[in-house]
Parts: sequence; C-alpha cells; structure tokens
Amino acid sequence: MRVGVIGGGQLARMMVPAAIELGVDIAVLGEAPDASAGIAVTAVGAASDADAVLAFAKDVDVVTFDHEHVPQPVLAALVDAGVAVRPGPGALAHAQDKLVLRRRMDELGIPQPAWAEVADEAALGAFLAGHGGRAVVKTPRGGYDGKGVRVVSAAPEAADWLADGPLLAEELVDFRRELAQQVARRPSGELVAWPLVETVQGGGVCREVIAPAPRSAGRIADAACDIAMRVAEALDVTGVLAVELFETVDERILVNELAMRPHNSGHWTIDGSTTSQFEQHLRAVLDLPLGATGCRDPWSVMVNVLGGPADGDLDSRVPGLLGEDHTVKLHRYGKAPRPGRKIGHVTVTGDDLDDLVFRARRAAARLDGTS
Amino acid sequence: MRVGVIGGGQLARMMVPAAIELGVDIAVLGEAPDASAGIAVTAVGAASDADAVLAFAKDVDVVTFDHEHVPQPVLAALVDAGVAVRPGPGALAHAQDKLVLRRRMDELGIPQPAWAEVADEAALGAFLAGHGGRAVVKTPRGGYDGKGVRVVSAAPEAADWLADGPLLAEELVDFRRELAQQVARRPSGELVAWPLVETVQGGGVCREVIAPAPRSAGRIADAACDIAMRVAEALDVTGVLAVELFETVDERILVNELAMRPHNSGHWTIDGSTTSQFEQHLRAVLDLPLGATGCRDPWSVMVNVLGGPADGDLDSRVPGLLGEDHTVKLHRYGKAPRPGRKIGHVTVTGDDLDDLVFRARRAAARLDGTS
Repeated sequence: MRVGVIGGGQLARMMVPAAIELGVDIAVLGEAPDASAGIAVTAVGAASDADAVLAFAKDVDVVTFDHEHVPQPVLAALVDAGVAVRPGPGALAHAQDKLVLRRRMDELGIPQPAWAEVADEAALGAFLAGHGGRAVVKTPRGGYDGKGVRVVSAAPEAADWLADGPLLAEELVDFRRELAQQVARRPSGELVAWPLVETVQGGGVCREVIAPAPRSAGRIADAACDIAMRVAEALDVTGVLAVELFETVDERILVNELAMRPHNSGHWTIDGSTTSQFEQHLRAVLDLPLGATGCRDPWSVMVNVLGGPADGDLDSRVPGLLGEDHTVKLHRYGKAPRPGRKIGHVTVTGDDLDDLVFRARRAAARLDGTS
Repeated sequence: MRVGVIGGGQLARMMVPAAIELGVDIAVLGEAPDASAGIAVTAVGAASDADAVLAFAKDVDVVTFDHEHVPQPVLAALVDAGVAVRPGPGALAHAQDKLVLRRRMDELGIPQPAWAEVADEAALGAFLAGHGGRAVVKTPRGGYDGKGVRVVSAAPEAADWLADGPLLAEELVDFRRELAQQVARRPSGELVAWPLVETVQGGGVCREVIAPAPRSAGRIADAACDIAMRVAEALDVTGVLAVELFETVDERILVNELAMRPHNSGHWTIDGSTTSQFEQHLRAVLDLPLGATGCRDPWSVMVNVLGGPADGDLDSRVPGLLGEDHTVKLHRYGKAPRPGRKIGHVTVTGDDLDDLVFRARRAAARLDGTS
C-alpha cells in the first residue's frame, strides 16, 4: 500500500506518523527537500508541473493532497493516466473555486450565506445595496487563511481584484460563532463523522478549536452532521472533508467553505479522538474500513502556534512548555518562525474545559513568543 | 534537536512518529536502507563498526539505541569523541551482560532469582544439585526473545554453550506471572514511572501486555516501582528503562532482565498513556521535561503479531481487521512475515478488560494468519 501526497506542508507531515503505524508507504511530492514533510519527500516539484506530478504518481497506488492547489488540467492528466486520485477532480473543484461551491450548494438546497457572482463594480454595487451596504468579497481561487478575502462597503474597494475576473460577493453573516464538521468517506461508500467542533478565528486564521463544540448537542450538531454528510455524498468526496460553518445569531447553520484534506479544525483528533484525521484520511483514500471517531476525553482543546519568537529560536522554548504542563501534547511543523505563520499546535484533553483552554493557550504562548 | 538512533528495527521506527510531532530531527544508522525504520535511515552500517558509528554520530546532538548490541569499545569511542551517549556505556553494560546485571542487583540488595556464574559442567552440576535439579541457563550476552535461554536438568545439556565461556545459571522461579515496570529518567535527574503492567510470554517471546497489571494495586505495584526507580538511579540510566519482573507464588517481586530502550512491554503506551514510551525516550535522552505517564483509559491490552500469513500477504488481511473492530489501533513494522517474527502489534483500550483481551487477540489473529 503506497500513498503519494502532492504537497509537503504540515498536513502531509502529520500523515507520516499515521502511515508508519498503519504500515502504509508514504511518498511526498514536496516543494523542496526540506519541506515540512521532508522526511517523506521522494520527489521535488511544483504541484502545477504536470510532468513532475505524473512521474511522481507512477509508483503509488493512490494520489492525495496536502492542499487544494493542483490545477484541474494536472488532475485530469493523472486520471487519464489511470492513477487513482482521491478526492477526485470533480469533488476538488468545489474546494478550489468558491463560485463553483456556492452554485452547487444552492443546487443541493444546502443553507449558505446570500451570495452573487460579481463581474464588475456595478454588480458589486447592486449586491451591496441589497445587503445593508457591506459585503464580504472573495477571489474565487487561491485564497486561504484570510488571504483573498476582504470586507467592503463600496464597490471601488474591490476594483483591483475585479480587474482579474469575477468575484464572489457574500452577505456579512451575523454569526454567533464558527463551527466545523469533519467527516470521512471512502470510495466504497462508508461515511463517518467526528463530533462537531467550535473554531475560533482571528485575522482570518484558525486560532483555537474546542471539541466537541460546547452547547451543541441536539439540533445544531444534527444539522451540521447532516450537511457535511450530504455534501460528502453529493460531491463524491473521498478522504476527509471539513465543512466550515457559521452558527448565526438566529440559530441557522450556514456553509462557509470546504476543505477536502486534513484540516486545522481536525488537528485535535490526533490526541483527542480514537482515530486521527490523518490516519482516517489514509484509510479513506486507500478504501480501507474507517476508524471510530469518538472523543477519548470529554473535551479537547487545540491552539495553534502562530509566528514564533522574534529570535527564531523555537527549540529553547520547548523545555519551558513541557516542564510547565506534563500533559500537553506538542506538535511542531519543522517550519522556521515567521509572523503569522502556522508553525505548530498544542492540544490538551480532559474533563474541565475552562482549565484546558487556559492551559492550551498558555502552552501556545510559550512557543509563539508572547510569554 | 537531532537524535541519532543506532539500529533500524521497529523500536527506532516507532520513535519516528514521536520525533515528527515533537519537531525533533531523527537519524537512524540502519542495518539496511529498507530496515523497519527505513524512512529515517540516514546511514547504513553495522552497530559493531566503530568507524561507521562515529561518522554517523558526527552531526547529531545525542546518540541512543534501538537495541543493546553496540559493543562497549564502540560506545567508549563515542564517549571519547565527545558524543552524548544515552543511556551511557556504564548503564548499558547491565542490559548487555546478564552476569554484570546479576552481580549489580546483589550489590544493591534488589531481589532476584538465586543465581551463579558457572564456568564448567561441575559448577553447573553443583548449582543444579542445590536448586532442585533444574535450572535456567543463559548465555550472558546476545540473547533476546528466548534465544540464549535453556532449561536444563543435567550439566551436559549446556556443554555446547559452556565451550564458549561462563554461563549464568538461575533457579527456576516458581512464578505466578510476569510483570514489567517501565520508568524514564533524564540526565538532570527527573524520573517518572508508568503503571506496572502484566506481560504474557510464550516461547520466550512477549505475546500480550495488560496495562495496568490486574490485581496489582498497593504493595506489588509499589514494590515494582521502587525497584525500577532504584535501578534507574543506581545505574544512572537515561532514557526509558523496562524492568522485567517475576511475581512469585509467594508474592515476592524478583528482577528478571532489564532493557534500556523502548520495550515491547511499553508498546501499549502509544495508545494507552498520555505519553508514549517513544516520545518519552526522545524527551529523556534530549534532557527535556518528561511527560505524564497516566493511563488514558482504565485498561489497555496490547497483543503482538507474530509470524504472519504463510503467503506473506499482510496487506490483504488489513481490511478484515479494521472492518471488524473500528477502535483497534494497528501498528505494523514494515517487516516481511516469517515464523515467530514480531511484525506488528495491536492495541485496544477501554473499560471492559475481558472484552478488550478478546478483541485484541482477535485482531492479532487476523494478521498472524491463524484466523
């Protein structure tokens, strides 16, 4: 069993421990030999380089992804060459292009923010006029972690982006909080869901995840799970799928975005669930039976480590973190500190949510240079 | 932080996931590029080749081990070259030579089976006469998993081994069961213990581990923990230490053998403890603060997968195993099936010990070809 992963970031990196335990050979096509997933990099090349991707895929049983940035023509070339691509190009299109996603969710009747495709300032002006004078404008492709997203109150504020093509305009959702529902699906159809989680964002980047989402038993959790399962089946997703959701102040659940790969909202599963999202993703893309998705403790709290100390010396901060809290689980990505960059995360699990949140934040602060 | 591991077996392999999560660079001196720990093999050479070992150790911060078979002269050369070797040669001698171990345990007043160094048949005959006519005879060096161990009732039965040098003769202990106590110690002195476990042996090989050891609260657990901690400190062990113990029918705890590296009796910690023995070993040899050693569930049961299917096709058996039990954790060693060979293990954790034992055995049987 040999899995090839396109992209050598931290998501590929965190697949490696799961691959080792399962006895799955893992090969990574990395941007550089010293990529985050460097230990498993077997070829260096760009995800947009069809020749490099095809050569890499020759000796693996299935190709999967660290990110969504493999162009559709490259995906098509893989399929034409007889390579098993999971998730497939048709599913991935919805994670690559936000306009494709919005159209499809409407077709499926899945609740989402009001939106429009706006090709020029007039169209954006009309959308603003119809939605209280403010809107979220997104480039359909290439955005992540807050990039390619802008809140505007006048059409000229998006003029630079409009010059490059149509944009997605969305209503500014009056939300109480953000949630994420993760599921996994294998080609033969098995579909499982982890508990709904709450995600705390800041500056467009995921900061914290609480699993399960507090105050979410019953209707909200059922609605989120139902949405994610419908999306996974309708789009024929294979592997793990994360559905980012808004919980509105009037208690609706709206789809924000999709990710068809392990996702930051699921990092808690490494320490907090019977089956981690990384193990599950490998099982799913290999069409192996899926693992149990229950929580190992009543609560898990994951906090991202962003940036890192100004002196770049992360190693020297590790003893303080580990010595202060003997139960915290540290996950580093092998990446040099840089402002705003995700360089690791910490997870704590247990019974007392307030205590866990305090301890996870304290541990992350030890590494990010703020304490 | 860069750790060099001498030996590329499954113990080195299972250090890799822990190293990835901790952000520790791991390099392995393997017997072959396709060793069990192949993904981290950076140099190929024998543990007995001083030149190869010294070259390997040049660019690591600390050297540690997958096995005990690095000769003392090679260890001394490392120390002379200024390399941090953990555990150090003085400690390792007790895991390399069973006569050295027995002498030292006596000096420390730590309970162990009656024993004698026997250089010839006359000495062995005298020992047999004094201990009921039967004894366990062991080659002082090189034995493991039942190799180098023989039960004899007459001195000539050990004549072949005696031709190569003195042997260790031990009384045949009337034991109720075998136990193992694992601790971890870092150079600056911190010392922690996992719960005492019960190990079930067959044919000289570990078959199953139950954590914590049933019916062991109180005096027995205290005695085992006290022994292991005294041994770790007296021998200046760094890294993890497993003390294999006999619980006798008259309720004494006797030291059987030591291992100064991750050990089969601690594989349950990957899934069953807050800190796995592999993570802890890396933390300890790097002199980082140690992690919590509590159980994540009331019970953990680990069963080894020995041998494997006669057709050698392990992959085809994985779906049956995973589909039958969605909570079992599978750990494969990347080794080809061979009669009696340890090729993996499975662990299940939960509340109901009888159910866990049944399920762990069933899962292992799915892989070893017996079901």
